[in-house]
Amino acid sequence: MTTIDEHALDDLARGAAILGTGGGGHPYIGMLLAKQAIREHGPVELVQVDELDDDALVVPTAMMGAPTIFLEKIPNGAEFVNAFEALARYRGHVATHTCPAEAGGVNALTPFVVAARKRVPVVDADFMGRAFPELQMCTPTMYGISATPMAMADDKGNSVILETPSNAWTERIARTITIEMGCASMIALYSLSGAQLKKCGVRGTVSLSSRLGRLVREERAAHRDPVGAVVDALSGHRLFEGKAVDVDRRTESGFARAAVAIDGTGPYADSRLLLDARNEWLSAERDGEIVATAPDLIICLDSETGEAVLTEEIRYGFRVVVLAAPCDARWRTDAGLELAGPRCFGLDLDYVPIEARAQQTAEARMR
Amino acid sequence: MTTIDEHALDDLARGAAILGTGGGGHPYIGMLLAKQAIREHGPVELVQVDELDDDALVVPTAMMGAPTIFLEKIPNGAEFVNAFEALARYRGHVATHTCPAEAGGVNALTPFVVAARKRVPVVDADFMGRAFPELQMCTPTMYGISATPMAMADDKGNSVILETPSNAWTERIARTITIEMGCASMIALYSLSGAQLKKCGVRGTVSLSSRLGRLVREERAAHRDPVGAVVDALSGHRLFEGKAVDVDRRTESGFARAAVAIDGTGPYADSRLLLDARNEWLSAERDGEIVATAPDLIICLDSETGEAVLTEEIRYGFRVVVLAAPCDARWRTDAGLELAGPRCFGLDLDYVPIEARAQQTAEARMR
Repeated sequence: MTTIDEHALDDLARGAAILGTGGGGHPYIGMLLAKQAIREHGPVELVQVDELDDDALVVPTAMMGAPTIFLEKIPNGAEFVNAFEALARYRGHVATHTCPAEAGGVNALTPFVVAARKRVPVVDADFMGRAFPELQMCTPTMYGISATPMAMADDKGNSVILETPSNAWTERIARTITIEMGCASMIALYSLSGAQLKKCGVRGTVSLSSRLGRLVREERAAHRDPVGAVVDALSGHRLFEGKAVDVDRRTESGFARAAVAIDGTGPYADSRLLLDARNEWLSAERDGEIVATAPDLIICLDSETGEAVLTEEIRYGFRVVVLAAPCDARWRTDAGLELAGPRCFGLDLDYVPIEARAQQTAEARMR
Repeated sequence: MTTIDEHALDDLARGAAILGTGGGGHPYIGMLLAKQAIREHGPVELVQVDELDDDALVVPTAMMGAPTIFLEKIPNGAEFVNAFEALARYRGHVATHTCPAEAGGVNALTPFVVAARKRVPVVDADFMGRAFPELQMCTPTMYGISATPMAMADDKGNSVILETPSNAWTERIARTITIEMGCASMIALYSLSGAQLKKCGVRGTVSLSSRLGRLVREERAAHRDPVGAVVDALSGHRLFEGKAVDVDRRTESGFARAAVAIDGTGPYADSRLLLDARNEWLSAERDGEIVATAPDLIICLDSETGEAVLTEEIRYGFRVVVLAAPCDARWRTDAGLELAGPRCFGLDLDYVPIEARAQQTAEARMR
């Protein structure tokens, strides 16, 4: 049995920032909330998907809204429990477990607040294997599983139960309610039976975050190569290293867009990488050639520390390594690409898996 | 026992337009929906407040949104039943009755759709005694009774259950959801016990609408004075008669605002009346002097037919009589004026009851 104590949350948060692919909100606030809950109520049990009874009721909890708001208006933790309980009550069952809806960013940590307070285990799985900006961009959607009933709660005492005919409608209506709630809400949705979670969960992503966080910490302490360790752990591909020389940030239709130019150093001297972001890193273009796109994971790390650099924090002068890693295989199917392919983010690009792109680049070099 | 059949709906709709004080949406679509439901399922029983058991569960149903949208996107009637049933299910009780939340406009008719389909009686009461544009402007708010739980449904299959800490929050969140649902939703809210309704209902307003509608029809048929009959029935005061000479309509923060100038005829020759509207008629100013304001009922009738003229339909050349009638006494208390006094509509005016204003005017004339 794995338990997550207060101490283990540091590695988990560090790893979740990496799987956040630049977005998902900084895990810092989620980590503080989870630490406090564990300090008060005790460590949380982490269970594997295969250990679940088929009739378990797993109720994921998360924050919805603008991560910048969470930093200004810190939840007290009770809102997550309210959403969790409201959803279970509405379904007329007792929730036996919780789990993250997304492995990356702040929402990798929020379920630990509920788990500690309600003494339920966290399942080692999520519905993305990374972070995505919209509610319907989750594996259950591909299996025709509804995001609703969904519960929402805010700090003022408002709560909502939603039922929608599609997960795209869930996103639309929940987004507008979140904005009215002050751009931040605590939500519970995609409540699944154990049997459903076995089918559509992305497995082992909580452990993966913990492992990534530990690797970075240990490699750095040993003066070895934290970045290389992350690349290996994710079967990733190193795309670039260099210095951020231009950052163009703008807010468009509720999303944080950014275009970043990085001038190469070391083996990439005289090259330039352009990163495009909408909350998360979406595409990387090196010297006019696309070298990676969503739904593959594009990750930007501090060259020295190996810590993730978020789209909202990168600035002129940051020295970074950019890498890409394969997404969960289901995102590469037609159904997956229809939900979270490059065109879903306004990029007029066909998706090519990162392994194939890396292969092409290697061959081009040899010619 | 009073029953409302298909035929009786004509008078009810005509009277509800009068109590709508210019707003509340034209009852026409509501009347068509109610007629169809009664034709298919039979007449509806109308019961008096005193006949209710204290533990009856009364679930009012209504439309929320822009009346102009209802005309383009006509509900099929099932949405009202969905909201009605969702709310009763959420409360864990069987709804025994329905009633209008507002006596004026389209929502005077919508409960008859639910009543006919679900075979439940309509209670002869509402929560305004007129029409108002916002959800919290209801008598239960004065008694500290929550508008929530509230159910909302749309034509696409979305449904929502809301719980809010105040009725002002109900309005805010439900409004934003309604906009996302396409500017029209079908709602059930202010579900009250029989005991609660006895305390805070405005009694007899369904019968009053029917009576007003019948009076106008009969007086007109007998070539008598339909306008005078309405003034008498409402203990009202005739403020003006004349011809609309200027209409300035604009949409501001989701409300239909209008300023109308009427040049006097007959006893009001050489006078001018200015009417100000935000959905409903809000104030009347005659030759620079305020002669009536909300929450009293300001009503504009066609001089010939006695039919109500709505703020959205008045045009240059309309010949009208403007009258004012006293609102339910509770709107005149501090709590009532805080909720629906002139300042709630952006008018920098103190409320003076219409009887006192009429008295002042009469005295001024005698001097």
